[in-house]
This record gives sequence, structure tokens and C-alpha cells, in this order.
Amino acid sequence: MDFFSTLMGDLERMRTSRPLVLNITNYVVANSNANALLALGASPAMTHFADDLEELTLFAGALVINIGTPSRELLDGVFHAGTVAKQNGIPAVLDPVAAGATTVRTEASYRFLKECSPAVVRGNASEIMALAGVGATSKGADSTRSADEAVDSARDVARMFQCAVSVSGATDYITDGSRTLTVQGGHEMMPLVTGLGCTATALTGAFLCVAQDSLTAATEAMAVMSTAGSMAAEKAGGPGTLQLYFYDALYNLTLDDLRRHVIVEEV
Amino acid sequence: MDFFSTLMGDLERMRTSRPLVLNITNYVVANSNANALLALGASPAMTHFADDLEELTLFAGALVINIGTPSRELLDGVFHAGTVAKQNGIPAVLDPVAAGATTVRTEASYRFLKECSPAVVRGNASEIMALAGVGATSKGADSTRSADEAVDSARDVARMFQCAVSVSGATDYITDGSRTLTVQGGHEMMPLVTGLGCTATALTGAFLCVAQDSLTAATEAMAVMSTAGSMAAEKAGGPGTLQLYFYDALYNLTLDDLRRHVIVEEV
Amino acid sequence: MDFFSTLMGDLERMRTSRPLVLNITNYVVANSNANALLALGASPAMTHFADDLEELTLFAGALVINIGTPSRELLDGVFHAGTVAKQNGIPAVLDPVAAGATTVRTEASYRFLKECSPAVVRGNASEIMALAGVGATSKGADSTRSADEAVDSARDVARMFQCAVSVSGATDYITDGSRTLTVQGGHEMMPLVTGLGCTATALTGAFLCVAQDSLTAATEAMAVMSTAGSMAAEKAGGPGTLQLYFYDALYNLTLDDLRRHVIVEEV
Repeated sequence: MDFFSTLMGDLERMRTSRPLVLNITNYVVANSNANALLALGASPAMTHFADDLEELTLFAGALVINIGTPSRELLDGVFHAGTVAKQNGIPAVLDPVAAGATTVRTEASYRFLKECSPAVVRGNASEIMALAGVGATSKGADSTRSADEAVDSARDVARMFQCAVSVSGATDYITDGSRTLTVQGGHEMMPLVTGLGCTATALTGAFLCVAQDSLTAATEAMAVMSTAGSMAAEKAGGPGTLQLYFYDALYNLTLDDLRRHVIVEEV
Repeated sequence: MDFFSTLMGDLERMRTSRPLVLNITNYVVANSNANALLALGASPAMTHFADDLEELTLFAGALVINIGTPSRELLDGVFHAGTVAKQNGIPAVLDPVAAGATTVRTEASYRFLKECSPAVVRGNASEIMALAGVGATSKGADSTRSADEAVDSARDVARMFQCAVSVSGATDYITDGSRTLTVQGGHEMMPLVTGLGCTATALTGAFLCVAQDSLTAATEAMAVMSTAGSMAAEKAGGPGTLQLYFYDALYNLTLDDLRRHVIVEEV
Repeated sequence: MDFFSTLMGDLERMRTSRPLVLNITNYVVANSNANALLALGASPAMTHFADDLEELTLFAGALVINIGTPSRELLDGVFHAGTVAKQNGIPAVLDPVAAGATTVRTEASYRFLKECSPAVVRGNASEIMALAGVGATSKGADSTRSADEAVDSARDVARMFQCAVSVSGATDYITDGSRTLTVQGGHEMMPLVTGLGCTATALTGAFLCVAQDSLTAATEAMAVMSTAGSMAAEKAGGPGTLQLYFYDALYNLTLDDLRRHVIVEEV
């Protein structure tokens, strides 16, 4: 079966079963990520409260960890939920927001990789290069590097932590250390909607509930992001309307849309 | 006077006086609930800071409590504000988000019902059944039951805590334990916008500032939700645009819109 | 060079250099302010975590402080970042949300003015009058006074703390204590979108990265707000769609749009 047919099968299974995706995420994107997960076909829960996490993690099909607005309390929640998820075989995806820009973010990301063994890391080029230790500098949440520059770093991180690594950019690169796939599509206005990278991470979590393996889940998420972004850009007058049409596109997305808007290749 | 005329009188009084509705709510929906309250005709304030709450509560026409993203600090604020509101005769509405799914949420909801005597509880079927102790299980913030199954539980909770109970679903049920009203309308895409249930709770708070009693306020809020949802769905291409057209509809809503889109009956 | 040409020069420099604007802001508007900054041409970062702030502040072109949802942790972050910014000559803008409504907000605003010497204070009339000590009462985040009433207070605050003061309203007033400018434009629906005042503060931060002085930066931000608001209102069916078209307008804004939609005068 070709990639897009597999993707649609996974998506249809998601839309039917509406798996719970538990998000410990930043307050900037909590609303938009919940909307994206609902529009796609999952059931989101957002929390970081210690007293909540054990029970909610056990209901979850996948755990999404995003350190965009860290606090002591949030980081405690991250490692608590990550440990419960690992012990119970629930796959996790890590978004190492602004790793490389501040020490606390870099260290928290490494610690999560080591202790909680996420199935996928999804970041921008600066973040993935920082995790590979190639000294990429980052000034904040936006990448200062292109995804093409980060491919070797992505493979290194994938091998070092035995996970899939998904680098978003004009072309997305997804690798498990041996196989590497690219996703081409999307639109240049997408980085001007705050948190669309975080949304890619959340959707990766949703596909981890239904896909056969981590590399497939991560690639499916990026293919859906690019397709919905392209569909939205056809109607949008700017990044404001782009965001809303993007959710509409997630909701309406079909096999034809995938074939028309995105190219997925192994490289 | 018929229900819709009463509603429009209350809404016009709200639009003129713009009562302060104080929200201690989760960070997922803080923005969307503030937008909904502004579009409808109220003046929202969102906080959970202990040092803020006494002064702000005394300015408020109603208090909205939503435990969607709990923390120790937020729960402290909830009970502090709830106590000040009760002592000063300011009506409160409770949204027991994911009660039944985790212990801390169930217990916090019960404690608020007992100590702070809210005028209304607004929840989905799973949450209301959990509060009635009928052992409904819930896997997160989305209901696993239909509102029809929760009517008896709603009456039980209303009698036990002497409040109105509002259960949202395809048909909404609102009861004070003796009288029970239904609201039919809305659209199946509404649950795919995150926090529209929380918005129903916020609008219930707004109507508590102007309506003659709690049952009326809770019913007016659900009638407005369904009407605005139906109006928005006529134009929306998916849940993304639905949310924005929903706020536009709240802002533009007229007596004719109510009559055209919603049925309110006593059962 | 006339004001609008200077503004467009500053805006083009911003769109090219995409300066980092660091926001310690409330969770109600974090998402919408990040979207506004991205659409305009800046790179936003949102945090309030002590361990993050020193490193991120040093990357920043400007610091935006908004006390809309205070907490002990957030206020600690505010003064920490404010001190680092002052020591390193990074300009800051303060939004004293609901100063005058609660003691903690009034006191935190004064303390920031005294200790951290912001380049600009951006508030509504109630807030600025409260800071001038003229006993304006406020019931929450929405102003109970018109901007016209607050002009003398704005000049007093500007002289007292040697900063520019920007008062938003139907007409905006921006003063450095000696010169006073007005911005006319915008639309009456704008106050019905939550956090557009906070957005004005964030955009002031963005212009502080590129403008020649604080008075100019503050005036440029208000001129852009009014222009984008007017452009959005031409297409919007209510405050819901207004918000999205507003971001689209920020993204597309040209010199012609400024000339057509806004009047800037010295008074």
C-alpha cells in the first residue's frame, strides 16, 4: 500500500476511535493545539497538574510534551507523566522548544530524551542541531537555520536516543537514523502563525495512537500539516485567516488533497 | 412574556450595562471565553491570583469557575473567590471539567458545590453523572455519554446542592430539580471547537448577572449557544471558521435568530 | 520625512531583521499577541520562567511586560527581566492591565516604573489615570473613562517617570510629557476583541526595536493598530472575524493603507 493510502487508513481509524492525546504544553498554543487535534480526529486533554497526570496518562493513546513556556511545576509534570507513559508503553513525542537558546530548555530536553525515551522528537533545525551538539545558536522559538542543514544532526539524535526525529522547514526531514523521508509542500506563510510547529508535534502524537511505527507516525503528521497548510493558503488573505482555514482543512482532508498538495519521498 | 422575549430583554440589559464577569478558568479557553463574553455583551476579567481576587470578586456581577487546567494555586483561588462571592450574594457557576476522570477534579467539584453553593453547574453528561455518583467513566474532557442519559443525574445534583444543573449535548437539559427545560439546536461540529462547553459556562455567568433566576439564566445561555452555533455553521467550512463566525453571531444575535434556530421546551 | 514614510521605513527594517520581542504576558493574550507580532514582522518569545529570562532578555530587541494575569512567579519574572533589560539598555514597554482596579496591580505597575524605567507605558484611560493618582476607579480590564479625559494624567506620568505614555481609545494620545500626538482611526468593534489593547503594547515593543525614539515607536504602533483595525472592519461580520482579518491586515499593510485609514497629528 502506498504512503497516502496508509495515512488515510490511519486517519480514518483515528476519526472513528478518537484517541485521547494528553498534552503537557505551553499556554501560548494550548488552545490552538486542542483545536487542531479535535479538527483532525483526536480527543485532546491539556494539563500539567501533578495530581491529574497519573490518571490521565493511563487513559492516553499518546503523550505530547512541549516545553515552550517552562516552569518548575510544568517540568515536574513533564517528567512525572513521561515516566508513567514509559512504564506503560504509551508513546511520547517531545517538542524541545527553543532548545539551544537557553540552558534550562536544552537540559530539560536532554533529560527527557534520556529518562523518558520518547518515540519521536519534533523540532525546527536550530533545536535539532542544538540537541546534536553542533553548537547551533538560536535566538528564541524561531529557527535560524534551514531544515536541510539539520539532516545529519537529526540522524545523530535519532541514533543516540533510538527515536524518530522530525525536522520541520520548507522541506521536512523525518528519520529514524537509518531511513530518512522528506515531505515537501506547505506554504511560506505557515511560520507566521504562532505555534504551528507545536501543532505539528501535537498531530504527531495523534498519529502515534494509530500508525504502525514512529517514523510513519511522524511522517504522516508532517504530510497532513503541509497539505492542510497548502489548502488553507489557497483561501487565506494572510496568517490570520490561514490559521482558521488550516483547522477547516484538517477536518475536511481527503486522500485526493494529500495527493494534490504534498510529495513524500525516501532520500 | 415568552421565553425568547425574556431572553432578549435580559440580553439587551446586559449589552447596555456590560456587567463584569470574573473568570477563574483554564489557560486553554481563557482567550476564547473572554472573546465570547465581549461579543455577547459582558465585560470579562480573567485571573486566579489570590491577591487580586477579593477586590475583583466584589466588582463582579457573577463568578465563573472552571477547573479545566487545575493547579494548587488555581484551586486556592477558586475556593477563595467562591467564598467571597457566596458571602456577598454574587452568583457563581461551576464547570466541573473532567470530573469523574481524575480524583482531584471530582473532589474539587464536590467541595465547591458544598462550600460555595454555586447557582448553576454546567457540564457534559459524563461530568454530571460522575457528580451524581452513578459511576460514569470519563476518559478526559470530552463526554462519553449523551445528555439524555444524564437527566436523572442532573435532577439529583440539582436537589442535592439546591442549584440549577445544565447538561450540554445534542439536546441540552437544564433543571432546578423540579422544573426541567430542553434546548434543541446547535450543530454537530460544535464539539470540535475546543472549549465551547467552557464558553457555555461563561455565558451562563453572563446571564446570571441579568436573568430573574438561575434556571432561566442557564437556559438562556444554552439557547444563545445553540443559536449562535447554528448561525455559524451555515457559513463555516469547518470547525476553524465555525469558532469565528460563532463570535460574530453572538455579537449580532436577534430575537428572530433565536426563533429561527432553537426550540426551548419544558419536559 | 513625513510620519507615515518614517513608519514604513521602520516597518520594512523590522520585516527584514525580524527582531526578537520578549513578552512576559498574561495567558489570555499570549497566543494572539504572538500572532500579531509574527504578522507584523517581529519574532516573538513568550515566557516568564526565571531560569529562562536572563538568556532570552539578552537576545531581545525589546521587552514587553503585561500584568494581565499576575502570579507571584510572573511578577518575579517581570522584575528580573526588567532589571536585566535596564542594565543592558534594552527598551521595555509596560501594560499596567487593570491598574487602579486591584492594589497588587497598581503597586506592581508603580514598582516597575520606578525600578525598571520602561521606555513606554501603554494603557487605557482608567489605567493611566490610576497611575497619575487622580483616583480613577476601574472595575476590571475594560476602561470606564475615555482617552480624552486621561491626557493630563498621561503627561504627568510621562514627566514623573521620564517615559512615553500611550493611552488608547477612540482617539489615542501619545505623549513624552512635552510633545503630544493623537492617532485617529480604528473601529468601535475593536474593544470587543479581547486583548487588542495588549496587542497594542506588544506592537509598541516591536517598534521600539526599530524606531528612533520612544514617542515615535509608541505612535507608530497605535497608527498600525488603527489602520489594521479599520482594514479588518471593512470585511468583518463581527468581532470574531475582525480579529483574523486584523492579523491579515498587519501582514499586508502598506503606506497607502496608513494614509487612507488613520490621521496622526501633534496637539
